[in-house]
Amino acid sequence: MTTARESLDRFYSIIPAGGIGSRLWPLSRADAPKFLHDLTGSGSTLLRGTWDRLAPINGEQRIMVVTGRSHRAAVEAQLPALDDHNVVLESEPKDSTAAIGLAAAILVKREPDVIIGSFAADHVIADQRGFVRAVHEAIAAADAGYIATIGITPTEPAIGFGYIHCGKPLDIDAAPHAKAVTSFVEKPELETAEAYLRDGNYLWNGGMFISRADVLLKQLGETRPELLAGLLELADAWDTSARGAVVDRIWPNLEKIAIDYTVAEPAAAQGRLAVIPGDFDWDDVGDFASIAKLHSKGRASDLAILGENARVLADSSSGIVVSQGDRLISLIGVTDIVVVDTPDALLVTTSANAQRVKSVVDALKLSGRNDVL
Amino acid sequence: MTTARESLDRFYSIIPAGGIGSRLWPLSRADAPKFLHDLTGSGSTLLRGTWDRLAPINGEQRIMVVTGRSHRAAVEAQLPALDDHNVVLESEPKDSTAAIGLAAAILVKREPDVIIGSFAADHVIADQRGFVRAVHEAIAAADAGYIATIGITPTEPAIGFGYIHCGKPLDIDAAPHAKAVTSFVEKPELETAEAYLRDGNYLWNGGMFISRADVLLKQLGETRPELLAGLLELADAWDTSARGAVVDRIWPNLEKIAIDYTVAEPAAAQGRLAVIPGDFDWDDVGDFASIAKLHSKGRASDLAILGENARVLADSSSGIVVSQGDRLISLIGVTDIVVVDTPDALLVTTSANAQRVKSVVDALKLSGRNDVL
Repeated sequence: MTTARESLDRFYSIIPAGGIGSRLWPLSRADAPKFLHDLTGSGSTLLRGTWDRLAPINGEQRIMVVTGRSHRAAVEAQLPALDDHNVVLESEPKDSTAAIGLAAAILVKREPDVIIGSFAADHVIADQRGFVRAVHEAIAAADAGYIATIGITPTEPAIGFGYIHCGKPLDIDAAPHAKAVTSFVEKPELETAEAYLRDGNYLWNGGMFISRADVLLKQLGETRPELLAGLLELADAWDTSARGAVVDRIWPNLEKIAIDYTVAEPAAAQGRLAVIPGDFDWDDVGDFASIAKLHSKGRASDLAILGENARVLADSSSGIVVSQGDRLISLIGVTDIVVVDTPDALLVTTSANAQRVKSVVDALKLSGRNDVL
Repeated sequence: MTTARESLDRFYSIIPAGGIGSRLWPLSRADAPKFLHDLTGSGSTLLRGTWDRLAPINGEQRIMVVTGRSHRAAVEAQLPALDDHNVVLESEPKDSTAAIGLAAAILVKREPDVIIGSFAADHVIADQRGFVRAVHEAIAAADAGYIATIGITPTEPAIGFGYIHCGKPLDIDAAPHAKAVTSFVEKPELETAEAYLRDGNYLWNGGMFISRADVLLKQLGETRPELLAGLLELADAWDTSARGAVVDRIWPNLEKIAIDYTVAEPAAAQGRLAVIPGDFDWDDVGDFASIAKLHSKGRASDLAILGENARVLADSSSGIVVSQGDRLISLIGVTDIVVVDTPDALLVTTSANAQRVKSVVDALKLSGRNDVL
């Protein structure tokens, strides 16, 4: 299966751009998902930031984006260098196994020895060099037959992230820091997170997967043979005139499930998963508290303000204001506050309650108020 | 000076409707002052509520309203029974001495033995019978030559109100509860307010003044002879064709000062001020915390919601939401919060900081942002 090509030349990035980011409602919506927002104040959307991190690694011609049909125009506006043959459009969201699996199946058909790397469209990474170093090691681990991930060395007992429990070091050329993955663990309680930090063998799960495409699909076939069969049939038709009909027939019936359950956890259990520790600043920008923290760089007294035309008058207040309009927003004596002001919905909460924003979205869904979702 | 008319027949109410209510910004504005809002959820504006309290006492034909020229249409829409000759329009605000003094001077010219009662346009009183009883005693005290006020028996050590220090009982027919006023005291600190409550001789200053018009003007002449002279000249011209020219010449030059300083305090110092204790529920609705309290009737866990089209989704939250639009407002885990959502300005603060809202208005004035004031 191997070729004479260098492993880096075989590398292809995949950006699944699908998640709405419910915890960032009412900023993030079905028609304005998290990855299309500039949450860092950098002037770039998170999607564009992801693209700009990946393009230097193996070029703009080797980045595939998987996104919803309704986001096509917005995505192409953000990524003018994105080639048509690198766009995979979903007629409806089917979670990460289908998104990444289809991209892998399409790419392996085009290039049998391709090594794919999947990177979320809506995360933030500050240290490009550290990121590139880790990706290079992950590619080497993938070339050696592992499904590789990059785990971020934790700096605090975060409860908003999943963790990776590391096992023994692996002996892989060009991946000197690779370790086996013992298991993945879901977002922990604070005490558990503190124990992880003390233990030292736990990393944050950054949701990055780097693997030979054939290895990834074989792993998927072991747990989800039907799902794999559907993806392979889609891939067979993808670069032909039959694509539309096959997509219409197969995509709606694919199982909707995260790749963590279908690939990552089973592979870890079988000793086939490698992790590269990444000692760089990373955040999944999962809620408004995390955005506030990104902006304040740890200063608790700060008030972060997002919004091009934001007009904020604050007195003895801290937290974050997100303003989509130009209304005057006045804060008096509110600390760790979260105010998100959009044309049709306003959110007021606190950093400590930022994770509960999803419950509002769930309540709105239940009550049929889709107009603001 | 006295006539054969019963004192109640000589009574004339004055409603100075001038204050913007800066502590209720951004709800209250120069073009939408506090008295034009329904803050109680009763369906009536505060101005209309005041009118409805006074009309049963001596009839709709004997209520004079002093307001700004720009509010004329709104006031008349609220009070369709208000007679033209009972409307006094100010070309610019000159505070309560000029407003009440001019009304008194006009009325005394029309009816030399008139007894006037001035009642703020933007207070809330729950107990009509208790209010009427107190007004009747105050009219009796006025007939006896006193400048009378109504003080509200305090139910808690409020720090948002001024206090009246009561002296010895006065011996007035038909005013059995009247006492002399020793002094007026400004809004106290909490400890002082607690001491007042224990002392038992302190009442809340409800800002109501009942007096023979000639007595009130004479008292004013002792401290502010020039201001009185201006008011008398205005009154002389009021019911003539010269009104406009005289107003243009005199009004802009009148001293801008509260009647507390020009009449009430000097009269108290001279033993000429009587107070009738009013044991009824009263509130000046001075800030959003007080509105929240009015609505929650003391239940701290409540969330008060004002606004005809308010759409509020609240989880573990208390305080008050004022919504002027139909945006969805979502609160999560914020207690004692104040959220005021208007088309061009949003305020987020807490009950404890409600009095500080005025500082925002001051800051906006200083920075020239009159568009939102």
